Amino acid sequence: MVKVGIVGGSGYVGRELLRLLYIHPEAEVTYVTSRRFKGRPIHSVHFSLRGYYSGIIFSSYSLDKLASLSDVVFLALPHGESLRHVPELLDVGLKVIDLSADFRLKRSEDYERWYGFTHPYPDLLRKAVYGLPELHRKELKGADLIASPGCNATAAILASIPLVSRFGLANNSLIIDVKVGSSEAGYTPTVGSHHPNREGSIRPYSMRGHRHSAEVSQELGRVVGKDLNVSLTPHAVSSIRGVLATVYMFSGEPLDYRNILRAYVEYFKNQAFVRMINPALPPGFPDPKHVLGSNIAEVSVVYDEATEIIKGFAAIDNLVRGAAGQAVQAMNICLGFDEGAGLNYPPLSPA
Amino acid sequence: MVKVGIVGGSGYVGRELLRLLYIHPEAEVTYVTSRRFKGRPIHSVHFSLRGYYSGIIFSSYSLDKLASLSDVVFLALPHGESLRHVPELLDVGLKVIDLSADFRLKRSEDYERWYGFTHPYPDLLRKAVYGLPELHRKELKGADLIASPGCNATAAILASIPLVSRFGLANNSLIIDVKVGSSEAGYTPTVGSHHPNREGSIRPYSMRGHRHSAEVSQELGRVVGKDLNVSLTPHAVSSIRGVLATVYMFSGEPLDYRNILRAYVEYFKNQAFVRMINPALPPGFPDPKHVLGSNIAEVSVVYDEATEIIKGFAAIDNLVRGAAGQAVQAMNICLGFDEGAGLNYPPLSPA
Amino acid sequence: MVKVGIVGGSGYVGRELLRLLYIHPEAEVTYVTSRRFKGRPIHSVHFSLRGYYSGIIFSSYSLDKLASLSDVVFLALPHGESLRHVPELLDVGLKVIDLSADFRLKRSEDYERWYGFTHPYPDLLRKAVYGLPELHRKELKGADLIASPGCNATAAILASIPLVSRFGLANNSLIIDVKVGSSEAGYTPTVGSHHPNREGSIRPYSMRGHRHSAEVSQELGRVVGKDLNVSLTPHAVSSIRGVLATVYMFSGEPLDYRNILRAYVEYFKNQAFVRMINPALPPGFPDPKHVLGSNIAEVSVVYDEATEIIKGFAAIDNLVRGAAGQAVQAMNICLGFDEGAGLNYPPLSPA
Amino acid sequence: MVKVGIVGGSGYVGRELLRLLYIHPEAEVTYVTSRRFKGRPIHSVHFSLRGYYSGIIFSSYSLDKLASLSDVVFLALPHGESLRHVPELLDVGLKVIDLSADFRLKRSEDYERWYGFTHPYPDLLRKAVYGLPELHRKELKGADLIASPGCNATAAILASIPLVSRFGLANNSLIIDVKVGSSEAGYTPTVGSHHPNREGSIRPYSMRGHRHSAEVSQELGRVVGKDLNVSLTPHAVSSIRGVLATVYMFSGEPLDYRNILRAYVEYFKNQAFVRMINPALPPGFPDPKHVLGSNIAEVSVVYDEATEIIKGFAAIDNLVRGAAGQAVQAMNICLGFDEGAGLNYPPLSPA
Repeated sequence: MVKVGIVGGSGYVGRELLRLLYIHPEAEVTYVTSRRFKGRPIHSVHFSLRGYYSGIIFSSYSLDKLASLSDVVFLALPHGESLRHVPELLDVGLKVIDLSADFRLKRSEDYERWYGFTHPYPDLLRKAVYGLPELHRKELKGADLIASPGCNATAAILASIPLVSRFGLANNSLIIDVKVGSSEAGYTPTVGSHHPNREGSIRPYSMRGHRHSAEVSQELGRVVGKDLNVSLTPHAVSSIRGVLATVYMFSGEPLDYRNILRAYVEYFKNQAFVRMINPALPPGFPDPKHVLGSNIAEVSVVYDEATEIIKGFAAIDNLVRGAAGQAVQAMNICLGFDEGAGLNYPPLSPA
Repeated sequence: MVKVGIVGGSGYVGRELLRLLYIHPEAEVTYVTSRRFKGRPIHSVHFSLRGYYSGIIFSSYSLDKLASLSDVVFLALPHGESLRHVPELLDVGLKVIDLSADFRLKRSEDYERWYGFTHPYPDLLRKAVYGLPELHRKELKGADLIASPGCNATAAILASIPLVSRFGLANNSLIIDVKVGSSEAGYTPTVGSHHPNREGSIRPYSMRGHRHSAEVSQELGRVVGKDLNVSLTPHAVSSIRGVLATVYMFSGEPLDYRNILRAYVEYFKNQAFVRMINPALPPGFPDPKHVLGSNIAEVSVVYDEATEIIKGFAAIDNLVRGAAGQAVQAMNICLGFDEGAGLNYPPLSPA
Repeated sequence: MVKVGIVGGSGYVGRELLRLLYIHPEAEVTYVTSRRFKGRPIHSVHFSLRGYYSGIIFSSYSLDKLASLSDVVFLALPHGESLRHVPELLDVGLKVIDLSADFRLKRSEDYERWYGFTHPYPDLLRKAVYGLPELHRKELKGADLIASPGCNATAAILASIPLVSRFGLANNSLIIDVKVGSSEAGYTPTVGSHHPNREGSIRPYSMRGHRHSAEVSQELGRVVGKDLNVSLTPHAVSSIRGVLATVYMFSGEPLDYRNILRAYVEYFKNQAFVRMINPALPPGFPDPKHVLGSNIAEVSVVYDEATEIIKGFAAIDNLVRGAAGQAVQAMNICLGFDEGAGLNYPPLSPA
Repeated sequence: MVKVGIVGGSGYVGRELLRLLYIHPEAEVTYVTSRRFKGRPIHSVHFSLRGYYSGIIFSSYSLDKLASLSDVVFLALPHGESLRHVPELLDVGLKVIDLSADFRLKRSEDYERWYGFTHPYPDLLRKAVYGLPELHRKELKGADLIASPGCNATAAILASIPLVSRFGLANNSLIIDVKVGSSEAGYTPTVGSHHPNREGSIRPYSMRGHRHSAEVSQELGRVVGKDLNVSLTPHAVSSIRGVLATVYMFSGEPLDYRNILRAYVEYFKNQAFVRMINPALPPGFPDPKHVLGSNIAEVSVVYDEATEIIKGFAAIDNLVRGAAGQAVQAMNICLGFDEGAGLNYPPLSPA
């Protein structure tokens, strides 16, 4: 059994890692940190986990403990905090899977633009592997540092990558409209997340363009050899879990829809955690509700011939495919386990 | 008091007309039809209206009764049914406000493309006034036939009309991403509207392009002298009421955001039922939750300089500004009442 | 026009008072206080009210200002804070309507038991009128101090008062099970009110017995000449607005259901804001959803002959009938206005 | 591997059985029937299960096929339909686990009272084991016919059985107030389940007393030697999954709360799928949200000394502990598997 440490285990991503790793046949959680809740049992924060992990309490961060108790470390910390721990964790020989944005972008100047700080470890940016298995499976094998993708970016990339791979579109713009549930904003209550204020609302945020635009531009850009013009706008809707990304792309010339659909089907045909939805067959649309609690992404595509606009769609559970599940999948690939280990169970429905 | 007949009063739009007209100082509902529920009291279908309209039961459609009991008739019927009644209602001298799509489009061939039938009354299409007050206030005065706009179209047009009016954009495409609550689909239960299936879902529908694209293209196109390239994609989210339209437009050249914002502020400055939301001030975003139960539209705009994409947003209550309220506002203008008669009360919040 | 001051206007009850008084034909809000938001315009907190009350900003509490600017003062303050202001407000000749619990109970010792403090003004407790119109309409006329009932208590009393009035039940116990929406807990975010934690939960709270038990016991007890044995248990459910109280009472001997139903029908027959729901007719059950945004209470009753248990039900909107609306109704009675002034519009549905 | 047939596999209980059995280490689903969807693949109805059970299509009911392809049969049929199949399934030597009410009650006359039909197999009523593991673990071992409990009854019994076992209460009445999510009403859409009508509602139903009263009375009654006086009233609330039962019981004499709590702790101390919630420790209350997707029941108890009312609470996921999960647990016991096989994973949270 590989031994797993979780740094920042008291948030929703930490909770989801604990849930998924509990049933993982090859991994065992041995150490969980929380600055805020150190010394308290896990179930005192994660009520759903009472009766599981009874032997573990939240600890302070300790490099020595992590080094002695774990083989792999998942970092579920806010942006800007992960990067302080990563170098020393790598130095002691741990595999590191970071769920923050701190190592997702390749160019340090992008951190200045999108995150407002100068990245101190540009060499590690080059070393880090962007943890989207459909794009980087080979590099993930044996990787030391994995930067697990953002949830909006995961959905946006899956909704568009087959098209970009097949048709290029390097000179076009991608308009990405994302709808997300409330859990995406994390564990901390705010006036905006207060139930009477939040339930029933439909709110754009990061309206000029969300940070995840950078990841999408970078990853799609690798395919065509230059960064794409991407503007990603998220909207908070009333679900708890779930992301649906709608990606609008101009074909630039008339295309045959059958070729577009075929590009998607072929791109994903060997991907265990992608379901292609043919709009002509039931249910006819992707929906995060169909994949609740699972690592599956539902993807679909249509073509509006009249306007020459291609619309790619992807639906995921933001805490599984958009965070903890994709990170576990990346770990599985990295360590040579079955890629679906701990992830091969059906979604919960209806729920 | 003007006497009002409602044809098709058993659906959600009918219910909302009854609610709004109950408190209208100049209008009185005298006759309500329902094929399905004729002979039954209104509150047997509309539980919320028990104690109101006690003297009225649902009747069969009768031209004679409508002619003798009413001055104005609201039609809240499915598409394709309104047009069968409109000519005779006009013939007997009634003012007609149609909430279906049957008279919204000017060109009869558009009905073939978008609604699948040949329109029998192209002359009435020319005569009908599209009932969006901000665009057609003058023509609404004294109009005989008013085609009340679709809810998605209302939001989409309000989100983009100032920009199109000011900057043209005739050669660009408008990408419209709409998020809607469950009441938009109307009163009839389906597998998709079943609560365990619907709550928490985020579903695109009419994915290739929704019929309301035609209205938007037509109305924005009038401003620039040719139809615009418009693709409108709706997404069902978990609210009951509410539409948020996000309209993406390419500026084509670098613009100054202050000019964009100014165009919106000026366009709406005398519009009683539009609230401009400056993204720099609280709440910072439009949300249908802020206008629940009211005729107000919240509108905002941002500019992503990096990608030269302008994003217009509009939030409405689909049953009020998107249907019954806007129709009452149009009636007020048509008949020379105070434009806000029956509509001047604050939204319900939180709810 | 009577001039109204609102002390504590930044919470949900304050917002609802502002909404209702805006359309009140005889009253006008002139002064609104908020310790936390003083100096800021009302719409900076109450986004839904933007465009209404443009001339008013939140002020600090000032007795002089209240005295000079208002005839009636509504207090929407936390328990324990209202009582500090009431004596001086009465001294300067203002009518006071207190929405906290500070003057609802007649016996000062009950404050020690249920609220944990010694009440400093036992004389004012005697003077205060419990503002439930169906029980105290006569005393409300001209009253100087009105203690507006709690939302759970309002529903519980309406669900059971006809039975107690007709059949006594003085030696029985009343078991009251209440289900409430999230707005009941007020404006301040907590971990428990955080949307991902709150939506979908069904949680008992104040499990041993809620404070509103005292009001219910007192008010029902007045009818039979002694306090009733009452245990009220609230449960938070996923609605935003709404209270449903289910009151279980033992008949003690076999009764005829027709007599029970008749007792309810007669008790409420002249009450404009109570809808009796006959379980044999549609909709067959009370539901706060049928009265959303309105001051109406839906009441019903059934009898389980096999167990000799009578079940009374009442559904209200907690912010209207359970708070602001009932307070406005009490003001109307107090000042001799039409009892329904500002309250006579239909509920919002569906929403 | 034991081979499992599912009769009536197209509803929510069928879907949940398919989900749970997919990850069961000792069982394999081999045959699934659906009258309505026969010939169609499972994922055409259960969108969430696409990619699972690819080899299985819905079949017509066939005794021969069930006999040849399965060892155990789960019946997920409406009440009154299961009993037509059970005798022949037993005759061919299959183990039968019936999720309808058809074999839950011991006395055939109870079917006349509560279900309106004369039960044709009173001998099988005696033979059937009520499948609540905490009460009937011993009889479940090797049982041929298991009657899986109703969801409301499961919660109600778990909330009260320790008290009844310890203190008797044979002469008292149990008032049971149940709150349930929308999935409890099953797969078929109705006007009442239509999302705009259902979301946000709080509705009592079966107001005079729900059929599950009979199960609760019977099972608690076995402990004290006579049927208890039970009245169970369910209320539909806005969750999708989840049941919370609140059981009110009179102590009849002053009790010490510590003894009550101890009775619960001891009763459940070796029960893997019950979590005792001490009201004095976080979270302080049971909530179906804490056990979403799992077979765990959360139970708690308080004592209101002033009124001598004991309140027992139990929270479950109605589709798992209230249906499919409990049936799988019963199968595990019956066949000698580990009791938690296929059920030992943490709940999904937040969701």
